[in-house]
Amino acid sequence: MIEITLPDGAIKKISENTTPMEIAKSISEGLARNVISAKFNDTIVETSTPLNEDGTLILYTWQNEEGKKAFWHSTSHVVAQALEELYPNIKLTIGPAIENGFYYDVDFGEHSISEKDFPEIEKKALEIARGKHDYKMRSVSKKNALNFYKNQNNEYKIELIENLEDGTITFCDHDTFTDLCRGGHIPNTGIIKAIKILSVAGAYWRGDENNKQLTRVYGISFPKQKDLTEYLELLEEAKKRDHRKLGKELELFTFSKKVGQGLPLWLPNGAALRERLEQFLKKAQKKAGYEMVVTPHIGQKELYVTSGHYAKYGEDSFQPIRTPKDEEEFLLKPMNCPHHCEIYNSSPFSYKDLPKRYAEFGTVYRYEQSGELHGLTRVRGFTQDDAHIFCTPDQINEEFKNVIDLTLYVLGSLGFENFTAQVSVRDLNKPEKYIGSVENWDNAEKAIIEAAEEKGMDYVIESGEAAFYGPKLDFMIKDALGRQWQLGTIQVDYTLPERFDLTYKGSDNELHRPVMIHRAPFGSMERFVALLLEHTGGNFPLWLIPMQAILLPVSEKHEKYAEKVLSSLENHEIRALIDNRNETVGKKIREAELKKIPFMLIVGEQEEASKTVSVRRHGGEDVGSLSIDNFSDLVSTEINSTLKSF
Amino acid sequence: MIEITLPDGAIKKISENTTPMEIAKSISEGLARNVISAKFNDTIVETSTPLNEDGTLILYTWQNEEGKKAFWHSTSHVVAQALEELYPNIKLTIGPAIENGFYYDVDFGEHSISEKDFPEIEKKALEIARGKHDYKMRSVSKKNALNFYKNQNNEYKIELIENLEDGTITFCDHDTFTDLCRGGHIPNTGIIKAIKILSVAGAYWRGDENNKQLTRVYGISFPKQKDLTEYLELLEEAKKRDHRKLGKELELFTFSKKVGQGLPLWLPNGAALRERLEQFLKKAQKKAGYEMVVTPHIGQKELYVTSGHYAKYGEDSFQPIRTPKDEEEFLLKPMNCPHHCEIYNSSPFSYKDLPKRYAEFGTVYRYEQSGELHGLTRVRGFTQDDAHIFCTPDQINEEFKNVIDLTLYVLGSLGFENFTAQVSVRDLNKPEKYIGSVENWDNAEKAIIEAAEEKGMDYVIESGEAAFYGPKLDFMIKDALGRQWQLGTIQVDYTLPERFDLTYKGSDNELHRPVMIHRAPFGSMERFVALLLEHTGGNFPLWLIPMQAILLPVSEKHEKYAEKVLSSLENHEIRALIDNRNETVGKKIREAELKKIPFMLIVGEQEEASKTVSVRRHGGEDVGSLSIDNFSDLVSTEINSTLKSF
Repeated sequence: MIEITLPDGAIKKISENTTPMEIAKSISEGLARNVISAKFNDTIVETSTPLNEDGTLILYTWQNEEGKKAFWHSTSHVVAQALEELYPNIKLTIGPAIENGFYYDVDFGEHSISEKDFPEIEKKALEIARGKHDYKMRSVSKKNALNFYKNQNNEYKIELIENLEDGTITFCDHDTFTDLCRGGHIPNTGIIKAIKILSVAGAYWRGDENNKQLTRVYGISFPKQKDLTEYLELLEEAKKRDHRKLGKELELFTFSKKVGQGLPLWLPNGAALRERLEQFLKKAQKKAGYEMVVTPHIGQKELYVTSGHYAKYGEDSFQPIRTPKDEEEFLLKPMNCPHHCEIYNSSPFSYKDLPKRYAEFGTVYRYEQSGELHGLTRVRGFTQDDAHIFCTPDQINEEFKNVIDLTLYVLGSLGFENFTAQVSVRDLNKPEKYIGSVENWDNAEKAIIEAAEEKGMDYVIESGEAAFYGPKLDFMIKDALGRQWQLGTIQVDYTLPERFDLTYKGSDNELHRPVMIHRAPFGSMERFVALLLEHTGGNFPLWLIPMQAILLPVSEKHEKYAEKVLSSLENHEIRALIDNRNETVGKKIREAELKKIPFMLIVGEQEEASKTVSVRRHGGEDVGSLSIDNFSDLVSTEINSTLKSF
Repeated sequence: MIEITLPDGAIKKISENTTPMEIAKSISEGLARNVISAKFNDTIVETSTPLNEDGTLILYTWQNEEGKKAFWHSTSHVVAQALEELYPNIKLTIGPAIENGFYYDVDFGEHSISEKDFPEIEKKALEIARGKHDYKMRSVSKKNALNFYKNQNNEYKIELIENLEDGTITFCDHDTFTDLCRGGHIPNTGIIKAIKILSVAGAYWRGDENNKQLTRVYGISFPKQKDLTEYLELLEEAKKRDHRKLGKELELFTFSKKVGQGLPLWLPNGAALRERLEQFLKKAQKKAGYEMVVTPHIGQKELYVTSGHYAKYGEDSFQPIRTPKDEEEFLLKPMNCPHHCEIYNSSPFSYKDLPKRYAEFGTVYRYEQSGELHGLTRVRGFTQDDAHIFCTPDQINEEFKNVIDLTLYVLGSLGFENFTAQVSVRDLNKPEKYIGSVENWDNAEKAIIEAAEEKGMDYVIESGEAAFYGPKLDFMIKDALGRQWQLGTIQVDYTLPERFDLTYKGSDNELHRPVMIHRAPFGSMERFVALLLEHTGGNFPLWLIPMQAILLPVSEKHEKYAEKVLSSLENHEIRALIDNRNETVGKKIREAELKKIPFMLIVGEQEEASKTVSVRRHGGEDVGSLSIDNFSDLVSTEINSTLKSF
């Protein structure tokens, strides 16, 4: 008999060679139906692997990341079989699961495939899947493994096997197909109900551009056809909402090869949007007791040696800036905190002055490989809505609550409602990993968890996820496409106050170390605007959108009236413009729709006579004729429904 | 007879060997009394130098820079004589006039002097001056000159003479004193009525640190005692108003050795001041049709090679920023214009879209030698209130008028009233120095001059002062201490549109080059805030000042009421705070005075009962008891008297 510990701590005593699937069955038939993968003593195993020692077992279903991984990896075997059957003599290489689906890298030899071939591949793969073939792992000697692939003339698999140790090599069989494979499969192919080939791309063997270029076949699969349909719809929607596409259409930002990759240029619409976001946050921060500061975008190299950032970013980032006679060396700042520490250090503080809360929209620069750049979400220069709170250890809880309030207010005003908190604490088993006293850590972790609780947040605690310099709380939000984003980190820091020798005079008249809290509700203006674009599809909250209304004169003779209306709208602080191009109103409406302008105000004979505008909403709703005052009230009411005061 | 041409074009026929002083007398006795120096055929001469060829003569008085120079240089001879008489065996070296006064570098040998010796030196020098000794120039052979100084054991003068050509060496005598001298003196020492020794400092012989260190004696002199008194008062006032001193007292900015010299850190008060200045300008600019953009602080080196800035700034400035694998090279931006050109280039424009006016508070970085750094006026990183107008050649006049309006409004709202315009145009004799067609230059210069005239500005035209890429207009303003500052440059640019291949489609459907206009009313936030500090002595206009009022509760029991008043003031958008330290009201008032807070609001028994505040102005005026509403009206009225709407 062996002892199997389950995640809930329950211990099952079973006979040796019982499989994970059998254990699942012993728990419930329902569980057994859903189990598709398992992990035993930290190693992924098959659900059919006989267990023969004591250990910890986790059973995975489609709901778990690990379950999906097994599902997609298993599908890659099926697709590989389909490809072999459709295209004789191709050579398979590797086929792993990825974040969304899987790929298989194939040397197609004389064949080549493109989008038009996808349906046939999908059909063939699905036929195989329907055969409900079990995945069966078996050990193979190195010699036999090599022979198997020598017969197939597959130099890729041979190369892989040559790098493996004899005794560790396994094959996986299903139906007539065999593949070199480490394991981690679902019980049988029958669970796979929907398969979609998504794309093909070139990929060098082993990622080395000196090697042969293979064809990477991307696919995804699901246990239900409906899941696939939903996924494809989401993909379609995500494509429509891609912030790079919307950013162009709404003329928010652009990039220039001459200026450099990953360095966004904010166009007037985008800069105005940023300005509104910044003013909105500044106002709330002022009420919350923050003080703005302004610091330069460079600092002496020594500054970052002191802060430890040079050790962290130095070699992989923008290199030091030399001066004509090499008298000094500067660095582009990767973080604002060292500068804020120096501001704190510029005058003495007593405990009565704390907390000090220094905020800055600080632009920082970090080098990213050009291949990793992506629109506004991965850039080389970005502006953090940064602040650093310098407080006494006793004030951590209160400050966390304040920051949670502020962050919930800020994100709530922008249409995000789905929040959870993730509290990252130390790994109690590895005290050597962390700086700062145990007492400080106990105090800070307790303060954070209590703050999350007192603010009624859903939270999870992630043990061992804290940085070495302090615990933190992240806001996890779901966007309109159900994707999870990490925003609004609140990070305790014990190391910078040490490194910069920050002090305050306590009530005991002695000098003490303040605690530092880093926080940024948006994270960065660039990433946040990208997220906001994808979350709203460009339909920003009315208070934020660059252009709130567009005036559409029916003909040239109504332009004068339109101008009067425009100036009246400006007095009501409504952002509007006139489209007086020589085009039909129909065409102007269609273009205003594309530009996501919330209100189209049509002005013609009738409107001029009655001193009104005909109001049409983005999306098509006809609001009817309204006086300017009534239209202005409508706008105010809508704004006030999302933008409460802090 | 020879012909002497005077600056007004008048020609005097006089006999040879007539002196400038005699010519002055022939014009008027009054002029002769005031003439102290002269220039003949572009060479400075004595007023007693006999003229013996045709030529152009300029006569200088104390009112001219050249007059002052002669006056101060002549005083240096007198001071040198005084030093020789007071400190036997010292060795004189050189004694030129400088911007304000003169210095003499002296090897004091066994002697040394300090501030306590100044009165005696001044007394002795003034005694000599009162002797009304004429300055008399004479030629000396190299041999005799060398002998003269060999007798004095003066190796410095010997070194100077050895580097001169025989036949060009002159001495100047007055009283018992003789000095090696090129000339340029006032008629006699009697004109010098006031002498002040200002300071002493170390200075290496010939500026070379390998040479002996001499003592530099700084001084100044005036034709009237009253002028000296005024000058010393101004000096005292300038010291009090030094922006570095005020910046510290008002907690506006600081510097940190770790961050680096010349890189200001804006403290909360300073950042709030900047923010208000920026918002003020943004608002006016919006009305004037500008659009804000935001661009990064770096760009690829290539960008600045294209713009020509690399050729100009490259070697003497911050060096290129390399990347980990040397794939790319970036530069800290010394200017915002290349980025704005790339924004212009990101979409096509027709003549109907122009002018485009892109504005940005853009922080730029330029390396300055550490010895040249000075507070906020000479820094290594600064934020320009920059904008670039892209327009058709026909629009230059209109755009200049718009910028003049904006600049006059902006500077006027900040208490500057004394403006003149300086228009820098090309040197018509050197057409090869300038790029762009003659037609374009004719057009632009005419447009600028007409704009200055139409706006009723006092202007001077400076021929040959235009940059090679276009003419410009500068605002010259006088501050409260009478010092001249150059602000608000408006610069036409024909070269960047060429270099960046900027185009617009004209009404002829062909592509044309737009003209670019650079402009910045403040110049930079740093320099402008420094100027504003020195101009106002820290007493900023009420709308701008960080703290408008301070509440001073008479005792602890009135703090509650003070808090109520504070929140009421906040509702009236008055920036205030409470001084609730445990100090006397008297002490609090003194400190508020130092902090230049315009209004001190005292609250005690009586005020609480009557729901008022006792208002005391900065400087001491007692305004009496006012309700919060009345106080708020007082503040609004004062603000509106300086801050008109644009």
